[in-house]
Amino acid sequence: MSTPKILETRELARSRFFRIEELDLRFANGVERTYERIPAQGREAVIVVPVTESGDVLLIREYAAGFHEIQLSLPKGAAEAGEDVCAAAERELREEIGFGAKRLQFLKNLSIAPGHMGFTINVVLATQLFAERIPGDEPEPPEVVAWPMAQLEALMSNPQFSEARAVAALWLAQIALAATN
Amino acid sequence: MSTPKILETRELARSRFFRIEELDLRFANGVERTYERIPAQGREAVIVVPVTESGDVLLIREYAAGFHEIQLSLPKGAAEAGEDVCAAAERELREEIGFGAKRLQFLKNLSIAPGHMGFTINVVLATQLFAERIPGDEPEPPEVVAWPMAQLEALMSNPQFSEARAVAALWLAQIALAATN
Repeated sequence: MSTPKILETRELARSRFFRIEELDLRFANGVERTYERIPAQGREAVIVVPVTESGDVLLIREYAAGFHEIQLSLPKGAAEAGEDVCAAAERELREEIGFGAKRLQFLKNLSIAPGHMGFTINVVLATQLFAERIPGDEPEPPEVVAWPMAQLEALMSNPQFSEARAVAALWLAQIALAATN
Repeated sequence: MSTPKILETRELARSRFFRIEELDLRFANGVERTYERIPAQGREAVIVVPVTESGDVLLIREYAAGFHEIQLSLPKGAAEAGEDVCAAAERELREEIGFGAKRLQFLKNLSIAPGHMGFTINVVLATQLFAERIPGDEPEPPEVVAWPMAQLEALMSNPQFSEARAVAALWLAQIALAATN
């Protein structure tokens, strides 16, 4: 199996945050298809799994515009100029939940919907937390919800917690924590 | 914490597969912001975790237009008119990997990037597989890769397997299989 040949690329639309592209493709077997995709743009994104000494993960409740509702998820954000993903993760924690972290561990770069979009997000595990708040760019500070890492299966049954990236990040954190304990 | 008030919605762009909307929002604390989002459209989507009697998950290698590369993931697709998500999951299996399933179990509806998009995908666990192929709409048949469920942690370290929805689906399947064994 090999990547198809891109015969032509057209930009269909462009907004502040998104571009829509159309690709004319020829696959190795000669089949031709036109695909749409939303290429990545902007800076690296991070999703953070902050885990306390007592074994709670600090979730947030925040507004999700895609569904126009308040949902439970993990702290997330975009790296600023010159920040690596661990520094971005720690700044987002200080802004969103009011904690810094002495230990930051990059776990994996996740794609989101690779058939249709080029976006990725970096999963960072944050431990050895300490209270430290800096002002963020959120319209409202998210609510923090402490959830025991030992009860993640119950969280998976909660329809308020449904974001694939956050589910994936929690599992990767669970694996990483088990390996270091 | 409450959902902000939508002051105005504008459609910025529309293509075959995507719409980009702009929302003027007023949060409960009075802060006003303009957000962009890509609302859901089209039919329900499914991602399938097919697990054999011998404990292998059947992954696929297929073209990912978002990155213009071949990636490892799980079978996925959209429900057709009148199909429930389990029926859609089984049809996708027959098309993409050449197996039917006697047992189909809905596990969870996952969102993808809820801050920016309204899309969701339904995770279905498929077991009691039997050989059965029907023609699909893929430009090329995906390659099937059998991977032991007992070695999922090694798969998580593989950068070829990076899709958040697939990582999440595998964990949910592992939890569901442990609960029934």
